[in-house]
Amino acid sequence: MKSGETLLRVRYAETDQMGVVYHSNYFIWFEVGRTEYFRQLAMPYAEFEKNNLLLLVTKAFCQYKSPACYDDLLRVVTGVNSLQEVRMTFKYEIFRHEKNELLAIGETEHAFVNRMGKPVVLKKYNPFLWRRLLEATGEQQE
Amino acid sequence: MKSGETLLRVRYAETDQMGVVYHSNYFIWFEVGRTEYFRQLAMPYAEFEKNNLLLLVTKAFCQYKSPACYDDLLRVVTGVNSLQEVRMTFKYEIFRHEKNELLAIGETEHAFVNRMGKPVVLKKYNPFLWRRLLEATGEQQE
Amino acid sequence: MKSGETLLRVRYAETDQMGVVYHSNYFIWFEVGRTEYFRQLAMPYAEFEKNNLLLLVTKAFCQYKSPACYDDLLRVVTGVNSLQEVRMTFKYEIFRHEKNELLAIGETEHAFVNRMGKPVVLKKYNPFLWRRLLEATGEQQE
Amino acid sequence: MKSGETLLRVRYAETDQMGVVYHSNYFIWFEVGRTEYFRQLAMPYAEFEKNNLLLLVTKAFCQYKSPACYDDLLRVVTGVNSLQEVRMTFKYEIFRHEKNELLAIGETEHAFVNRMGKPVVLKKYNPFLWRRLLEATGEQQE
Repeated sequence: MKSGETLLRVRYAETDQMGVVYHSNYFIWFEVGRTEYFRQLAMPYAEFEKNNLLLLVTKAFCQYKSPACYDDLLRVVTGVNSLQEVRMTFKYEIFRHEKNELLAIGETEHAFVNRMGKPVVLKKYNPFLWRRLLEATGEQQE
Repeated sequence: MKSGETLLRVRYAETDQMGVVYHSNYFIWFEVGRTEYFRQLAMPYAEFEKNNLLLLVTKAFCQYKSPACYDDLLRVVTGVNSLQEVRMTFKYEIFRHEKNELLAIGETEHAFVNRMGKPVVLKKYNPFLWRRLLEATGEQQE
Repeated sequence: MKSGETLLRVRYAETDQMGVVYHSNYFIWFEVGRTEYFRQLAMPYAEFEKNNLLLLVTKAFCQYKSPACYDDLLRVVTGVNSLQEVRMTFKYEIFRHEKNELLAIGETEHAFVNRMGKPVVLKKYNPFLWRRLLEATGEQQE
Repeated sequence: MKSGETLLRVRYAETDQMGVVYHSNYFIWFEVGRTEYFRQLAMPYAEFEKNNLLLLVTKAFCQYKSPACYDDLLRVVTGVNSLQEVRMTFKYEIFRHEKNELLAIGETEHAFVNRMGKPVVLKKYNPFLWRRLLEATGEQQE
């Protein structure tokens, strides 16, 4: 499964005095997208952390095309861009759901780290999860 | 020292589409007030956590009198309302600094817990810190 | 309809370094509860604002009983406590949904104001909405 | 003045259960940096909005090098990357202040829009501000 989808509703708290959503909130929605994507892969991210594997954000990017507004129903489409032994990247698209209007696109890069924040080589650190991620995302090992 | 003061500047991210600060942010400012109060007492809260003592919020209250706006310079006045062996309460006042205009008052209650979230009796758990808190806040033991 | 229910999933961004949800986020969930409650009453809050009526928070309270954690599925139960001509109050209960475990209870008070932030007497300002709120919440006029 | 500096203290609310700052908060700090940069130029951003000019974020990027932690004192260095008639870009560096340790770098792009969200050509829309921005940032008109 190369991508997953989830719906969310814009909260009042997420707006600012411009009358639209404050830009940093899109990164929180990306995280909601990742969480639901992993759940749809039957690998909930909460389980990763219980197994002492964390996905530390190392880069984050968003391009805003049209503003999201209070109470909008949004669709977050999350996919894997690349999977490597020490990191993976995700890409996102956020749509105003009913109108199918693209509001933003984004990307995040994550290092595999343990609870102490030390980078780990996933293939060695957790070969089982590594194979499942490879299969799930349909990636060729790079 | 029964109370401490700190200044902060309202961030754009803290506003909402009403054009004023979203109400939940005042609780974050209360936390800023607590942090600076402990620092002014020469007992930084970060040290508490290093000593395996956490102040878990068990109640929080705020009354809003006049809205804070983007770029306002605010003064948070933080004091201790009560200190008991298992909990303590703080009170707060938030002012628009230059006009000395009272914007909000609030109160939070905190349980003393260890890193596992288990309640502890501070007097036994950390007698040194207990005495320093008693002295610092000028509280009589209740 | 005296109360409404909505489900939400705890976001990673809502946790803090204690490993549980940061306390101010519960007030944002209360707001999600209100929004969904009004939607279930067929009176979306977004419509209120289009009609130049805002519900300004004047008091907020929360009591925390057990901490919410990342990825928990929560149920927010929202009801009206009182409806008066110039203000209304809501009460909330937040449950860990599957275990039906009560995590927090809260209350918020809201003044009816126009877009300029001026208090209005809802009964005169918008008699139609006033009657619908009275009916919907089953309140006797106080 | 090509860049400005401001100090800020990491808030407990900004941490997450990894024990470090949640990544979306850096974008809020970038905004704090912009606000203080404009203040240091004697052109507070709040004045822009009163003159019906808004800087809408169209792109945002951050690269994370080392995590910020609770109570860290940070220094945000904000500069202008480019100034054009319809948009401008800022760049940021965030340091752990006392150790002078670089934690993150970033960039944001902003469109000049009016209160209705319509793009405007700043040179025509507000020639006075346009010239002051040109002078202040030492940019050559592109």
